[in-house]
Amino acid sequence: MKNIIIASTSTVHGSGTLEYILPELKLFFEDANEILFIPYARPGGITHDEYTAKVNDAFSKIGKSVKGIHEFENPKEALQNAKGIFTGGGNTFVLVNQLYKNDLIETVKAAVNNGTPYLGTSAGSNICGLTVNTTNDMPIVYPPSFKTFGFVPFNINPHYLDPDPSSTHMGETRETRIKEFHKFNTQPVVGLREGSWLEVKGNSIILKGELNARVFEYDKAPFEVETGTELNTLK
Amino acid sequence: MKNIIIASTSTVHGSGTLEYILPELKLFFEDANEILFIPYARPGGITHDEYTAKVNDAFSKIGKSVKGIHEFENPKEALQNAKGIFTGGGNTFVLVNQLYKNDLIETVKAAVNNGTPYLGTSAGSNICGLTVNTTNDMPIVYPPSFKTFGFVPFNINPHYLDPDPSSTHMGETRETRIKEFHKFNTQPVVGLREGSWLEVKGNSIILKGELNARVFEYDKAPFEVETGTELNTLK
Repeated sequence: MKNIIIASTSTVHGSGTLEYILPELKLFFEDANEILFIPYARPGGITHDEYTAKVNDAFSKIGKSVKGIHEFENPKEALQNAKGIFTGGGNTFVLVNQLYKNDLIETVKAAVNNGTPYLGTSAGSNICGLTVNTTNDMPIVYPPSFKTFGFVPFNINPHYLDPDPSSTHMGETRETRIKEFHKFNTQPVVGLREGSWLEVKGNSIILKGELNARVFEYDKAPFEVETGTELNTLK
Repeated sequence: MKNIIIASTSTVHGSGTLEYILPELKLFFEDANEILFIPYARPGGITHDEYTAKVNDAFSKIGKSVKGIHEFENPKEALQNAKGIFTGGGNTFVLVNQLYKNDLIETVKAAVNNGTPYLGTSAGSNICGLTVNTTNDMPIVYPPSFKTFGFVPFNINPHYLDPDPSSTHMGETRETRIKEFHKFNTQPVVGLREGSWLEVKGNSIILKGELNARVFEYDKAPFEVETGTELNTLK
């Protein structure tokens, strides 16, 4: 049975890495003393080692140790043996590129579909959707495909930002961008505000956290859903 | 001799399409009564016809008519015969995808390198750089390549936005994103603020408009350049 947390962000303003969600993660990773970490998204370009050390610090607060997938000679075997997997944020294109380069897409999918608990934040959440066509990141590398895990039957837009009516900036708002996405694609998009996450258990997909999420469906007006809403009817 | 205007935006806040730059364009397109417009970036997903009509309205104020490239049976021939070319903003991925699909990259390059005046705004400016790896747009379609015209020996970041020190949003700033780009790429990036443009004449590349631009070079601290600065030494 799938067991996944798809979180908008690793860090909410004014608090440490994963701090807002650590109580939840203690239960989620109950049966995993060691978490297998996928550091490929390299936020700010930091190395895999640096990123893993940072995440290890955060997880040590709930008594878990963290090992980076780059430390294993055989990353496929590491995924197959993992008791819990975490993919952190950074640049979605860099992350996806590295997953394809190391031929790990299908291995992660198989492990997670078999029930290995998976936590994603930001870029690590983006890849839980059907494609990365709704990432906010800059396309600093060119991956061989935009297709990703498809753990949920829609796309994710993490760090969802509401339009700022006072802005004089002429760049597109997030809502405009997602509307443009729907001129070329039909799957729904769930905009997750910071501090929100989706809890996926088998076929159930429930919005968690304090805030509403914004749902964009093809050829419909976008709408708000409250925390606690079951989203498994989106498709 | 190349003759290009690479503008950050088509529209500055509180003014009509191209209004801020129309006096400049009247001179720039002096020898072109009709402008060939490339509407492929489809801002907000509008059709090629709708976009062309909007741009035609703007150019009519300086006595020019506009014809969309999609109106021609043979778009390559249209480019070869054009007296002036304008590529408007919208979604960079959609634009690049369509240029590749219609096999027009080399044809535009040849025309512009032969001296046909070319105006780009926003997405239409992004493609004047080496690649679109520094676009701000959402990757709503997957183009066959990120390589573009390379009219200047660096990348462009249009709509350049300074970091907002008061923001509580945890998404990356533009500067962070460009720094991440330089973990994987070495070419310089010129961040063009709204209302700024680059004037390319042969080998000269001069910053125009009222504002400074921000230049990011590989492995160096970013720096400001004043309007009027010659940028052809960047590489």
